[in-house]
Amino acid sequence: MIITILGAGAMGSALATPLRTAGRDVRLWGTWLDDEVLDACRAGAPHPRTGVRLADRTALFGADDLAGALDGADVVVLAVASVGFEAVLDRALPLLPPGAPLAITTKGFVGNEHAPSALLPGALRSMADRVGLKAPTVVAVAGPCKANEVAAGRPTAAVFASADQSVGDRLAVVFATSAYRAQVSEDESGVEVCAALKNVYAIALGIADGLATEGQPWHDLRAAIFTQAVTELLAWTEAVGGRKVTAVGLAGVGDLEVTGLSGRNKVFGERMGRGERPSTALAAMQAAQQTVEGVPAAHLANRLASRADTARLPLFGVLLDLLDRDLTPASSETEMAALLSAVMPQ
Amino acid sequence: MIITILGAGAMGSALATPLRTAGRDVRLWGTWLDDEVLDACRAGAPHPRTGVRLADRTALFGADDLAGALDGADVVVLAVASVGFEAVLDRALPLLPPGAPLAITTKGFVGNEHAPSALLPGALRSMADRVGLKAPTVVAVAGPCKANEVAAGRPTAAVFASADQSVGDRLAVVFATSAYRAQVSEDESGVEVCAALKNVYAIALGIADGLATEGQPWHDLRAAIFTQAVTELLAWTEAVGGRKVTAVGLAGVGDLEVTGLSGRNKVFGERMGRGERPSTALAAMQAAQQTVEGVPAAHLANRLASRADTARLPLFGVLLDLLDRDLTPASSETEMAALLSAVMPQ
Repeated sequence: MIITILGAGAMGSALATPLRTAGRDVRLWGTWLDDEVLDACRAGAPHPRTGVRLADRTALFGADDLAGALDGADVVVLAVASVGFEAVLDRALPLLPPGAPLAITTKGFVGNEHAPSALLPGALRSMADRVGLKAPTVVAVAGPCKANEVAAGRPTAAVFASADQSVGDRLAVVFATSAYRAQVSEDESGVEVCAALKNVYAIALGIADGLATEGQPWHDLRAAIFTQAVTELLAWTEAVGGRKVTAVGLAGVGDLEVTGLSGRNKVFGERMGRGERPSTALAAMQAAQQTVEGVPAAHLANRLASRADTARLPLFGVLLDLLDRDLTPASSETEMAALLSAVMPQ
Repeated sequence: MIITILGAGAMGSALATPLRTAGRDVRLWGTWLDDEVLDACRAGAPHPRTGVRLADRTALFGADDLAGALDGADVVVLAVASVGFEAVLDRALPLLPPGAPLAITTKGFVGNEHAPSALLPGALRSMADRVGLKAPTVVAVAGPCKANEVAAGRPTAAVFASADQSVGDRLAVVFATSAYRAQVSEDESGVEVCAALKNVYAIALGIADGLATEGQPWHDLRAAIFTQAVTELLAWTEAVGGRKVTAVGLAGVGDLEVTGLSGRNKVFGERMGRGERPSTALAAMQAAQQTVEGVPAAHLANRLASRADTARLPLFGVLLDLLDRDLTPASSETEMAALLSAVMPQ
């Protein structure tokens, strides 16, 4: 069985570990931004993003050989960053082998000034419609999965969500190992909206961590933020017609927990918590080539927010407001009061 | 308004901060184990347990002056460790001013070989019945509240749960400050069972943290454990007739988050995760006078478990089994496999 992974970044490369362990033939295609990564992998060096060597006998394909990478694939995995989602799909859609399901690990929203924001599986189906192609069956892969842990073979529980349960079941079997375990869900929308929004809420958890001074954590505030984030994930999930159990499961609570422990969204929030303006923190991280997916996700999610009961999203509102007005609660009593009122009303 | 706090340990002393900030007259009564603490407070030194100085103008009462401490009190707060719950109540019940509500911050279960385990407010009512006294109206105080943060006046969201909503509302107003905020709940049983069980699940979170080697966290496993713990808190809450919203709120998710960030239960779990047998870890911590409330809570909760659907409590089952057989998943592939299967079934 041939599995082609599109995108040689952290998660794309990491998935070679369970797939090779499960005995699959794995092809890893690098985008036009991944040349350096492929060079490192070819040299047997650790992957620059995960710090872990690529699984043995993973076949590498450069950006100019997308057709070769997809030829005869039984399953395709789309694992690019959300900003590259449309550009890669534009090229890949006409080349997808008929009948091959598409697993998507990319998280976030698609949207620009001319298009409403949309969850990724829906956006993919719209793109396929526009060019007169049949869309593949999509399986959204989510849950608390850090790429470096997946790559290193540490225990990980993923969620495979598909409107077509039989395809979800089948892919779960394709990927599963004793370390990488797959839970199946039919709630594609709920899983996707939790996966996208958890990056936004991880910024808030980071703010609480950043407020800590030496030996003086603000754990009580962090826990109140975490609780409110879960409550709001429930509201988002309902707003897209998803199931509550998704928000309190691996794709919601689980992914929020892991994203709040480390990663760029949390680090961005920590910088805000230590007093940096959002624009300053973002510029510094962008200069270090660190994308903070929660920032565009917050703005794109806001276009969905009218579908949710916005009164149930006070923490989201405060975060969006801080980003829009380039403020941090660390240096403004007014903003701190707004944050506290969002997570601990009285 | 006079508020008498019974127990000069970490949480009892800490609550003097919001109460004094709110302008209440505060009396702090130390048990027969608290002499050292009272001495430190009288000397103006930081509280030995919180590291924070007691709020100004808190009146101190020694163990032999319980009657004086309670005389004329408008509200009584019971803030002793769970092991001292019955002993202190035995003495305090006959001395409680008629009509004064009793706020309880103690968490856990009461039980011994001759008595079934019970949640604390119910145990209190049984004790009062036995001696022919009218039980006070109980308000269970829970949520993500670390004593040292409450003492230092950092933002904290508490839950005040009472079957008598008007009393819950009244006490929330008595305690509330801009930093210490009180959410009211009528779900006394749900709040109590979450508060007691979160100590058990924090041990599991600690195990995941302890498995980490330098720079190599097991965050994916931690997040899967966290998710399963929330799912099981929902089952426990249902089993005692509580409300689901309690388990996904401050008393469940929130308290689990804060308890998993620090504290003795998490530290005990970390030692297990690093390879120590439970008995070894417990002995070392007891020698340092560190009570691990999750260990007796696990055994006492087990007597309640028949009321829950035990099939929904696989993580609880694994933890109890590890404690009973004095094993750790860090040094046994079989136990590790059992832990993984409990939190990430496939």
